[in-house]
Amino acid sequence: MQRYQIKIEYDGYKYVGWQYQKNGLSIQEILEKAIYKYLNEKIKVVGAGRTDAKVHAIEQSAHIDIKKKIKKDSFISGVNYFIGNHNVSILDLKKRKKNFHARHSAKRRTYHYLIINRRSSLALHKNRAWFVKKKLNTILMKKSLKLLIGTHDFSTFRAASCEAKSPIKTLEKAELVKKRDTIKIIFSSKSFLQQQVRSMVGSIKYVGQKKWTITEFKKKFKSKKRFNCAPPAPASGLYLKKVLY
Amino acid sequence: MQRYQIKIEYDGYKYVGWQYQKNGLSIQEILEKAIYKYLNEKIKVVGAGRTDAKVHAIEQSAHIDIKKKIKKDSFISGVNYFIGNHNVSILDLKKRKKNFHARHSAKRRTYHYLIINRRSSLALHKNRAWFVKKKLNTILMKKSLKLLIGTHDFSTFRAASCEAKSPIKTLEKAELVKKRDTIKIIFSSKSFLQQQVRSMVGSIKYVGQKKWTITEFKKKFKSKKRFNCAPPAPASGLYLKKVLY
Repeated sequence: MQRYQIKIEYDGYKYVGWQYQKNGLSIQEILEKAIYKYLNEKIKVVGAGRTDAKVHAIEQSAHIDIKKKIKKDSFISGVNYFIGNHNVSILDLKKRKKNFHARHSAKRRTYHYLIINRRSSLALHKNRAWFVKKKLNTILMKKSLKLLIGTHDFSTFRAASCEAKSPIKTLEKAELVKKRDTIKIIFSSKSFLQQQVRSMVGSIKYVGQKKWTITEFKKKFKSKKRFNCAPPAPASGLYLKKVLY
Repeated sequence: MQRYQIKIEYDGYKYVGWQYQKNGLSIQEILEKAIYKYLNEKIKVVGAGRTDAKVHAIEQSAHIDIKKKIKKDSFISGVNYFIGNHNVSILDLKKRKKNFHARHSAKRRTYHYLIINRRSSLALHKNRAWFVKKKLNTILMKKSLKLLIGTHDFSTFRAASCEAKSPIKTLEKAELVKKRDTIKIIFSSKSFLQQQVRSMVGSIKYVGQKKWTITEFKKKFKSKKRFNCAPPAPASGLYLKKVLY
């Protein structure tokens, strides 16, 4: 039995999220079925994070245990062949020690959130970004992002269904990059609460629209009350960019 | 009657191309129907170039003549509303003089061709790039691209059905930009022959794969014989980037 890390890219729009669900197809199920078809071995795919329905991954990570001897290139090509027409692709495979765990061993997770801020509805970025029509003030957004960096109680930005033991997380990066009408917000942390990124982005967008002043944003953040959060940003603008071990 | 230039973005994958076809839906038809629904006025949309089926546009241009008085913002939002769920969006509208013609007045057209050169099949770029598995030598590709710049007879890279009077065109730019596994090839010219970009990219890719030496590439280019062209690159990797007037 050998443990491996796999890296996976996906367009999550058509799927119910990373994890198995009764109501539709998940990335996990697509991967496990394709690996079974290739190896004829039942494999559990353990992901670094459970991305929500419609969320994308530029590089998700997972671990798998395999009995058979495999060759990296044939494994990747073979499994991708059986993934077929689904918008999922295995990018890489690495041997890992038995104690490597895709979720627990992760040192840093990075997410990107993409906003297209323009007059015209989306064609090339449809289901791949948040379309925001009203002009956003990115200077104010950057200022409020700075307040999130460091160790804080993120209860305001935590889904009611979140199962984490503590709402305290350390945000290492919260950065905004603007290029014409594209706004990319980058977050890095060892781990995130459920819906934390989308909740933070939804609230930051309120600041960009001047629905909230920075002082109000800070107050709501510090209140640690979920009902003070703005509506979370749509899932389809969110990308799991990378998991570092 | 007022002439306007409109700028349009589209994901062409699901459509039969820019121009009306009997066998499916075209970008032109989507636009004309949406404008009719908004204005209740029959409008002909004249495009700068007839992109093939599955080809995308970051910024296509077209002209239209409108009798009614219109307001820019309402027109864009209104027509985009009637475009509905199609992957097409009007980006901009500009008043133009009567003698402005989207096709004939164009001074420069720029196309991007996107190749993803990696082991793993495409998920996020599915139907948006050419997936090439075998490692391409981009130094050789750049060298052969240089041979295309300037005024030449491009008969080798011209579709049999091309209706242009002359096969002689002046290529102003032929540039390759590599970023990790993404290869973007940029072409600019006043105008292009039918399938010229895809034919050039298909042949340049042969050089990158070392199926052809640069000398062979040059010979085939100079032969002015269509049968010396490599298979044209797939349409879904091609983007009309911009039309300058």
